[in-house]
Amino acid sequence: MAVQTIDDIPTPSLILDRAILRRNLKRMSDRLREAGVVLRPHLKTAKSIQVGRMAVEGHDGRITVSTLAEARYFAAGGFKDILYGVGIVPAKLPVITELRRQGVNLRVVTDNLIVANALVAAASSGDTFSVFIEIDSGAGRAGLPFPELPGLLDIAGVLHAAPGIELAGVMTHAGHSYHQNTLEGIATVADQERRAVVGAAEALRAAGIPCPIVSAGSTPTAMHSLDFAGITEMRPGVYVFNDLDQACIGSCGAGDLALSVLASVIGHYPHRNQLLVDAGALALSKDISAQEFQPKVGFGTIAGAAMDGIAVVDCSQEHGFVGADRPLPYGDLPVGARVRILPNHACITAAAYDRYYVVDSELDGGKSVVDIYDRINGW
Amino acid sequence: MAVQTIDDIPTPSLILDRAILRRNLKRMSDRLREAGVVLRPHLKTAKSIQVGRMAVEGHDGRITVSTLAEARYFAAGGFKDILYGVGIVPAKLPVITELRRQGVNLRVVTDNLIVANALVAAASSGDTFSVFIEIDSGAGRAGLPFPELPGLLDIAGVLHAAPGIELAGVMTHAGHSYHQNTLEGIATVADQERRAVVGAAEALRAAGIPCPIVSAGSTPTAMHSLDFAGITEMRPGVYVFNDLDQACIGSCGAGDLALSVLASVIGHYPHRNQLLVDAGALALSKDISAQEFQPKVGFGTIAGAAMDGIAVVDCSQEHGFVGADRPLPYGDLPVGARVRILPNHACITAAAYDRYYVVDSELDGGKSVVDIYDRINGW
Repeated sequence: MAVQTIDDIPTPSLILDRAILRRNLKRMSDRLREAGVVLRPHLKTAKSIQVGRMAVEGHDGRITVSTLAEARYFAAGGFKDILYGVGIVPAKLPVITELRRQGVNLRVVTDNLIVANALVAAASSGDTFSVFIEIDSGAGRAGLPFPELPGLLDIAGVLHAAPGIELAGVMTHAGHSYHQNTLEGIATVADQERRAVVGAAEALRAAGIPCPIVSAGSTPTAMHSLDFAGITEMRPGVYVFNDLDQACIGSCGAGDLALSVLASVIGHYPHRNQLLVDAGALALSKDISAQEFQPKVGFGTIAGAAMDGIAVVDCSQEHGFVGADRPLPYGDLPVGARVRILPNHACITAAAYDRYYVVDSELDGGKSVVDIYDRINGW
Repeated sequence: MAVQTIDDIPTPSLILDRAILRRNLKRMSDRLREAGVVLRPHLKTAKSIQVGRMAVEGHDGRITVSTLAEARYFAAGGFKDILYGVGIVPAKLPVITELRRQGVNLRVVTDNLIVANALVAAASSGDTFSVFIEIDSGAGRAGLPFPELPGLLDIAGVLHAAPGIELAGVMTHAGHSYHQNTLEGIATVADQERRAVVGAAEALRAAGIPCPIVSAGSTPTAMHSLDFAGITEMRPGVYVFNDLDQACIGSCGAGDLALSVLASVIGHYPHRNQLLVDAGALALSKDISAQEFQPKVGFGTIAGAAMDGIAVVDCSQEHGFVGADRPLPYGDLPVGARVRILPNHACITAAAYDRYYVVDSELDGGKSVVDIYDRINGW
């Protein structure tokens, strides 16, 4: 059978450039290793064993996941230290226990006493748990808000005192770094992130409670933090692929986007200077995070030197509306032509697909499909 | 084994209320049958054999799909007349041919001469095709814009003259009906839709070209059109489930929403009057269509008499931020509690799930899981 190329695969499909992926992985891995911080990549973006294995190279194999489906999948793939990074609830503990009994150190997160007490009750039957307390370092999502840290010592005290429970440490995610688009702004958020999570760790230690792991991280703060003092691990996620949002923020350069959606031109509408592609709301997602700083990227931009300023400006379920501020080059984009669309937010776009068609721009410009990586979606 | 209830299933999960589904299906089926119009339901919303079979009851079994994956799946489920409603491109013709050779009348859509000529070339080897010409009745998506209908007779002439090609008719989708929220506004769009597609059919017939099927339809126009004269079939889709968007438009009532996302409360944040649930951007989608008319529905609203005005106001990948203009009733929503979130746009929300947990509010208030329906996602 002939080598499969991207002209042979169906549209829409998800294309992963292995050369860019490898550069992205190496950049983050090297940076954190040099900083003396362990990389615990957040695999919610890639959701792929193959990418996960590459991502932990040079570190100790610990990872972060966002769903129990990912936890099962990566455990089956041989990963042994897995942090489930979304606040645990009692009904999910049987799944945690099942994987822990198989020898996987699947760790959980909470920020409240109800769950801490439920963990203690569950551990009383002989099972063990490893627990992080979540800190809100300014993102306003989950966690005990710093500097008040309401209830920190109560929660930690309950967990620390319980047989079978290891209080693994504290963790935070500086999600507000996504709303900065200068290096100074990101570095300021990174400093908030560090001070909050290290501050929480110090509060525990001052109370005589051990706090071995101090875990932080987002892609922007991992890339641009000026000081990791006190942090033991970082959990960036989207850096593996990057996307228009990260490029707009300044977490990566324009050449660092490893992911794209392959789509076909299905019709021309010169009376409104548009064309349609067969990648719409499901194939691209309706995430428009990058529009915070660059409204004209729409739901994704068309890759290619001659395609500057051409974007998916609207989408319905299976139709992407492609437009531009200049006349569209219809001659370069005939009906049936294939385009590659750079995603606005890679984590959300990728979730529509069950596989990556892997190409390598350093081999042959990214023409041949050199591998297929699977993905674990759902919960 | 005990009956499974919605307290036993994982979160997030997709819950389908069969009682509401049946009412929605019957309402549309009856309405169109009484109007003398055949229902060709658009199964892009449900993507489910079980729902599809119920949806065509009282009609002749014809359906619409939005992906080739749906086409394969419904063909395997016994459906014989399937319209693939997204503009076809030459590279997809082998899949069309494969299913047609199995006896499935899988019909395609185009609005341009390039594809018409490619169909003629493909048919020259002995294969057959059934083709609709798409008309833009005002939505500004695909199709030849009415009333100019540029190229209509050229495209139709090429298809009509070709051995092995049946010009099945003309079709349109009044997507702009989604941007009306009065019955008068929707009826006006429905009239545009009807006049455009019937006008195109008449233009063909005046040129001596048969046009057996005149196909229109969106859920709003199918529900509120005052006149179907000249239309032979309608293709509504989201009516099977309805959602906040359809309720805001006025296509359905507040009690007609069959779909919800089951989620767990994972944390309380009274300092900002919020709580978090484990249903975020992937579990709900980032589609905010309904915010056009009701911004406060956010990414979905919490179902229940005591939950009025409580919505998912923001979301990250796996976190939904729940807020309200009034103090949240934390006592009714403890950590670990389960809530049901009514989706903003059902078609997009459902696409994250591989199954429906089916309940029946007329049996036991929707407590027991009475069935599981599968879904076909991807392409």
